[in-house]
Amino acid sequence: MAKNQEELTVQDLGEQGLLRRLLPFCPAAVVGDDGALVAVTAGQSVVVTTDVLVDGVHFSDRTTPPFSVGWRAAAANLSDLAAMGATPLGITVGLSLPGATQVSWVEQLYQGITACLKPYNTAIVGGDLCRSSAVTVAIAAFGQVLPSQAIRRHTAQPGDAILVTGVHGASKAGLEILLNPTLGQGLSEGDRQLLIQKHQRPKPRLDLLSHLPACRISGMDSSDGLADAILQLCRASGLGAELHYPSIPVPSCFKTWLSEAQALDWTLYGGEDFELVLCLPLEEGRSLVQSLGENAAIIGTTTRQMAVVLANDDSTTELTLNKGFQHF
Amino acid sequence: MAKNQEELTVQDLGEQGLLRRLLPFCPAAVVGDDGALVAVTAGQSVVVTTDVLVDGVHFSDRTTPPFSVGWRAAAANLSDLAAMGATPLGITVGLSLPGATQVSWVEQLYQGITACLKPYNTAIVGGDLCRSSAVTVAIAAFGQVLPSQAIRRHTAQPGDAILVTGVHGASKAGLEILLNPTLGQGLSEGDRQLLIQKHQRPKPRLDLLSHLPACRISGMDSSDGLADAILQLCRASGLGAELHYPSIPVPSCFKTWLSEAQALDWTLYGGEDFELVLCLPLEEGRSLVQSLGENAAIIGTTTRQMAVVLANDDSTTELTLNKGFQHF
Repeated sequence: MAKNQEELTVQDLGEQGLLRRLLPFCPAAVVGDDGALVAVTAGQSVVVTTDVLVDGVHFSDRTTPPFSVGWRAAAANLSDLAAMGATPLGITVGLSLPGATQVSWVEQLYQGITACLKPYNTAIVGGDLCRSSAVTVAIAAFGQVLPSQAIRRHTAQPGDAILVTGVHGASKAGLEILLNPTLGQGLSEGDRQLLIQKHQRPKPRLDLLSHLPACRISGMDSSDGLADAILQLCRASGLGAELHYPSIPVPSCFKTWLSEAQALDWTLYGGEDFELVLCLPLEEGRSLVQSLGENAAIIGTTTRQMAVVLANDDSTTELTLNKGFQHF
Repeated sequence: MAKNQEELTVQDLGEQGLLRRLLPFCPAAVVGDDGALVAVTAGQSVVVTTDVLVDGVHFSDRTTPPFSVGWRAAAANLSDLAAMGATPLGITVGLSLPGATQVSWVEQLYQGITACLKPYNTAIVGGDLCRSSAVTVAIAAFGQVLPSQAIRRHTAQPGDAILVTGVHGASKAGLEILLNPTLGQGLSEGDRQLLIQKHQRPKPRLDLLSHLPACRISGMDSSDGLADAILQLCRASGLGAELHYPSIPVPSCFKTWLSEAQALDWTLYGGEDFELVLCLPLEEGRSLVQSLGENAAIIGTTTRQMAVVLANDDSTTELTLNKGFQHF
């Protein structure tokens, strides 16, 4: 008896059959050769980045439907391009799957990837499919930028404003609500959905590129957490920082919903908000905050002292790297 | 008690510790940011390709030491660039590993990757490491080519010479000897080692680029087998082909060592020889064979009839795609 479409597995279709199903997700002009040919604007350099997501490590059926797995995998890579100041040109998708994976799961994964790419006129320009015991999504993204406008980590100067482009802690809060539904009971449905959305469909901040001033800007994205981003930027630039905790934008529900310690932890160490953290001269920083709107903020200043110090209303703490996400 | 260096696992070192060990394999100038910045020559397009290798599917400890896994992963990607006529600019490596993987295994993998890249002045410019139940090596490679000189699959014309750049069947023979050591007993040690070398350290044919004539050239690499390459080229160009089996270069030991049927099977369907199959006007094809040397040969002609026919001394067979490597 023929299987229901919903039950069809990758093994049922075979590699060629699966490829035929996935082909419509790629522009016809770039498939069919050993590699894709993509034009680069003369004078621009190429920016390349890669991220691997593994089932059971970076996502699970419990918190992340396949559409969101695809969206998040694409977003993580586009965020790296945004963090370099680069406009995306395309991505490649290397997918490893158990044969028992449902074809509909794979199709929804590709729908999520292409939905995330679409606002940026970016396409899947290459890929590879193979069998494995664990679902692994390996994406490489590439973009272009004028070398003089590339955002690097090592170019911050003492006295720079430290700017964040949006709220932190929201993605982690969304994940925790998905893992422990009772946790979200004190929240309005709107807040709950917003936090889940921030976890499942984070937006890479490519919208920022057209707002950036022409001055020196150092920066990176906050995919591994806000504290990690600031510490990495400071280390790369040989600087320290003074941060003002009340200036860090967080979801408005944090104040009433979470203990102070919990809010602090998720804001600084939650990760995967995919905002940018930028160091730039104060005046340009202020204009950029105005042009980006209320969720952007200047949260501190770089210093010649190497320590990264977080000042709260009545205390100060030194931040260290020991709380980052460890994969092994 | 401190562990012996040989026994040290990825889990013992942690992600940061492993990253520190792998950093020396990447040029200092390109690491430390969210992405790598790579210059592209004005007027050239970028070619992008990706390949994923999975433990137990594409390699196993029985046949492929980690150095060779790395070499083969890099070679497969560089071969795709060569097949597009592109000069490599860099690769990214997305690596998923069980925590119990030995650190020395990972280091030898990276040694194999960089050893394969070195002759082409190409570097690992980005990467990601994460935990998984299966070792998965996802490489994306990118290179550059003048768009007018890019080698595509769909541009062959009827009457083109079909040229192969080297012997076929050698990689498969090497693999079979590794799987069944008794199989190689009838061979000289030199022949045996040569076939194993062809399997474990295939050379991407980037050396060819400087020999290519300025005429129209259609082509692809023979990673999925010689028959597959010819069938794909013919299908993309809407053509057929007449092939002359005795003209196909094979390892010299095949004649005495293998039955005729076995030699034919490995030559046409063995795969992973990473040679190029090119369609071009006959005269330019002849000059190219001369400039490449004895292992290159013209093995047939494209035709208006859609069938791909293999003529032997006393028979003809029609080739079909049904024998290709299926991943699921």
